[in-house]
Amino acid sequence: MRSTAIEWQSRRFAAWVAFTERIALLCSHKQTGDAGMRTQVAIIGGGPSGLLLSQILNQAGVETVVLERATREHVLGRIRAGVLESGTVATLRAAGLGDRLDREGFYHEGCFLTDGDLSIPIELDKLTGRGVTVYGQTEVTRDLYEAQDAMGTTIVHGVEDVVIQEATGTAPFVEYTLKGARHRLDCDYVAGCDGFHGVSRKTIPEDKRQEFERVYPFGWLGVLSKTPPVSHEVMYSNSPRGFGLCSMRNAELSRYYIQVPVGTDPNAWSDDQFWEELSLRLPKETADRLVTGPSVEKSVAPLRSFVSEPLRWGRLFLVGDAAHIVPPTGAKGLNLAVSDVYYLSEALIDALKSGNETGIDGYSDRALNRIWKAMRFSWSMTTMLHQFEGESPFEAQMRRATLNHLSRSETARKDLAENYIGLPY
Amino acid sequence: MRSTAIEWQSRRFAAWVAFTERIALLCSHKQTGDAGMRTQVAIIGGGPSGLLLSQILNQAGVETVVLERATREHVLGRIRAGVLESGTVATLRAAGLGDRLDREGFYHEGCFLTDGDLSIPIELDKLTGRGVTVYGQTEVTRDLYEAQDAMGTTIVHGVEDVVIQEATGTAPFVEYTLKGARHRLDCDYVAGCDGFHGVSRKTIPEDKRQEFERVYPFGWLGVLSKTPPVSHEVMYSNSPRGFGLCSMRNAELSRYYIQVPVGTDPNAWSDDQFWEELSLRLPKETADRLVTGPSVEKSVAPLRSFVSEPLRWGRLFLVGDAAHIVPPTGAKGLNLAVSDVYYLSEALIDALKSGNETGIDGYSDRALNRIWKAMRFSWSMTTMLHQFEGESPFEAQMRRATLNHLSRSETARKDLAENYIGLPY
Repeated sequence: MRSTAIEWQSRRFAAWVAFTERIALLCSHKQTGDAGMRTQVAIIGGGPSGLLLSQILNQAGVETVVLERATREHVLGRIRAGVLESGTVATLRAAGLGDRLDREGFYHEGCFLTDGDLSIPIELDKLTGRGVTVYGQTEVTRDLYEAQDAMGTTIVHGVEDVVIQEATGTAPFVEYTLKGARHRLDCDYVAGCDGFHGVSRKTIPEDKRQEFERVYPFGWLGVLSKTPPVSHEVMYSNSPRGFGLCSMRNAELSRYYIQVPVGTDPNAWSDDQFWEELSLRLPKETADRLVTGPSVEKSVAPLRSFVSEPLRWGRLFLVGDAAHIVPPTGAKGLNLAVSDVYYLSEALIDALKSGNETGIDGYSDRALNRIWKAMRFSWSMTTMLHQFEGESPFEAQMRRATLNHLSRSETARKDLAENYIGLPY
Repeated sequence: MRSTAIEWQSRRFAAWVAFTERIALLCSHKQTGDAGMRTQVAIIGGGPSGLLLSQILNQAGVETVVLERATREHVLGRIRAGVLESGTVATLRAAGLGDRLDREGFYHEGCFLTDGDLSIPIELDKLTGRGVTVYGQTEVTRDLYEAQDAMGTTIVHGVEDVVIQEATGTAPFVEYTLKGARHRLDCDYVAGCDGFHGVSRKTIPEDKRQEFERVYPFGWLGVLSKTPPVSHEVMYSNSPRGFGLCSMRNAELSRYYIQVPVGTDPNAWSDDQFWEELSLRLPKETADRLVTGPSVEKSVAPLRSFVSEPLRWGRLFLVGDAAHIVPPTGAKGLNLAVSDVYYLSEALIDALKSGNETGIDGYSDRALNRIWKAMRFSWSMTTMLHQFEGESPFEAQMRRATLNHLSRSETARKDLAENYIGLPY
């Protein structure tokens, strides 16, 4: 604060260094030919975050290269729920991905919470003027690949041993192995969209970031079944036996979950056992209407809350699961990734098109502000709806009192609804 | 459910037994003269709950006797904060206790939450159409004594070794020692208004009730000082150093609190140390305006959430602290006692004046419904504003995210405001 003149001079010097380095780089590229690639934004990870970022940047005339470890088939094989906030839908539409989404997505005007036989309708649309759209994450990814193919963007699959170099300098580059050969991708910025286990977050030295984590002592046993859903709208159920969730993919495909202890083997549960346990956790009226059938898929997912701060390290930016994980209660995972992409794309376009770096300087704080609120919401939904081993009867009562308050207070329901449909960008 | 005819007959039999016993009792009274007293409602405990119940019942022509262990001076010496919900004020006014309250009470249109330098105004009046009234519990008690004296009701002080007998029968009575002599008070109903340590709750056998408890790992160190309050409105402050609270009694008398570890000796804190620590927990702008001075009173209060269910055992009813304790964050203690009194007085008047027992049958559920919601609110305010030893950085972030959400969301502030001013009876 006191040395503004010195800072200004050092910035001028950095800008000059950057300029000369850029020139040098361009010369070296010409000299080495095939040995290196150059792009404006190197995107690590070709899941929905990376593809959407690539989509938005290319639409604005910013060049990208997406580096993805897996094959396209493998990426499309990842089945994830898709409850899209209206902001997510708007962002996808603006990126030219609205056609099939608008045709095949299911608009949900509300959702339900239940506690034993108490049913609490959360009238999202009535309370906030907006609802949510159910459209699987796999479908979003499929649409993104098609859009990217149509634009002719570069997505490199089968990339291994990615190393992000010189992230804090002015000329970062990414090294990777493809079909046994080592490659180098020079770029202006690196976007880390490579998920929780990816290399991007770990590139930031441990003493330069802070991690926040809560691992929940339970998981979700999920069953996909070719049966008509018991409820069009998503139903989140608290019961003394644990949490249960009813959701739908389409008129003939349902997805149900029950809370199970950590480390549960999904194969230890027969379909009959699953349906019986789920029924016991739902209001009787709902359980009576439940149509059961053989499971198409059965798996256990752990629940975790995780944030790594900050989201920026020099010219490297973290996006989505690479920086934060939410428990699925509240369906925020994909939506948070999309708002990160929204903020970062705006910032990168500003920086690369107008030389205005305000956006990239503010990206981490701006994204984290929304991330922490969604973390809080996901944590509070998880806490309100699950049984915690070893919890006191008082804590169980607090959960029931929270649900009872929701059932009686329109203001409390509106607060939940505003969070559920997504806080403003 | 299946034996309605038998139940009806057994009720008829019980009513006949009650009738004959009442006759027998009246005869015995005439025979024994001074040896026994009779009233309609025996009220155990002469704090604000017991006195207000006596006040409302006597106004409706129901006879009461209040039995209190301490002297009147001792009862009036108990200093407690007094943030009165509008429902509490309405109940006190209806009971003829509005004059001085309306003259000397301070109407507060709002309160503040702070987190570091972030200040979050909770505009109670603007958000809900109602505010709260600051009027010390001691003043409420003083007004009650005066009103009771004016009506000539019976308040017996210095009562020891109270035993509630035959609570599940049709003719309960209370035995007690006064000035060395054992006495008996026959009655129709017993109201247990004798606080957490009183005999009333313990009269209910342990296997007939369930207790819920949370003891917080900290207390409040409170200082009363003859200094102008730093804020007219109550200020609840979160900070990495712990919770702080600024409140006022009048223009020259302030009450401040800081969170301290359980078991802290108030005398281990000098006034200077207290003011310094408080200042560090407030927004800088507030700390700069803080007028310090010698403490008039200094004490440490523990924080506890406690509920015993049900509130009825035969003809014995629990009221206020006898059945439930809230941590002071949110100022619900006295207000909950007043809503209990409101429900119970209505029920007892119905039963004794019209023979309609619907109210006394429903008292426990009706009161508990409101109690649990206030328990939840007090617990959530406590959790949101205090540092918990051994908590993870993630949990501290959840607290800050909750406060941040409140600062950005009018709906969240309205939900807090509706709880703070008191949920409807």
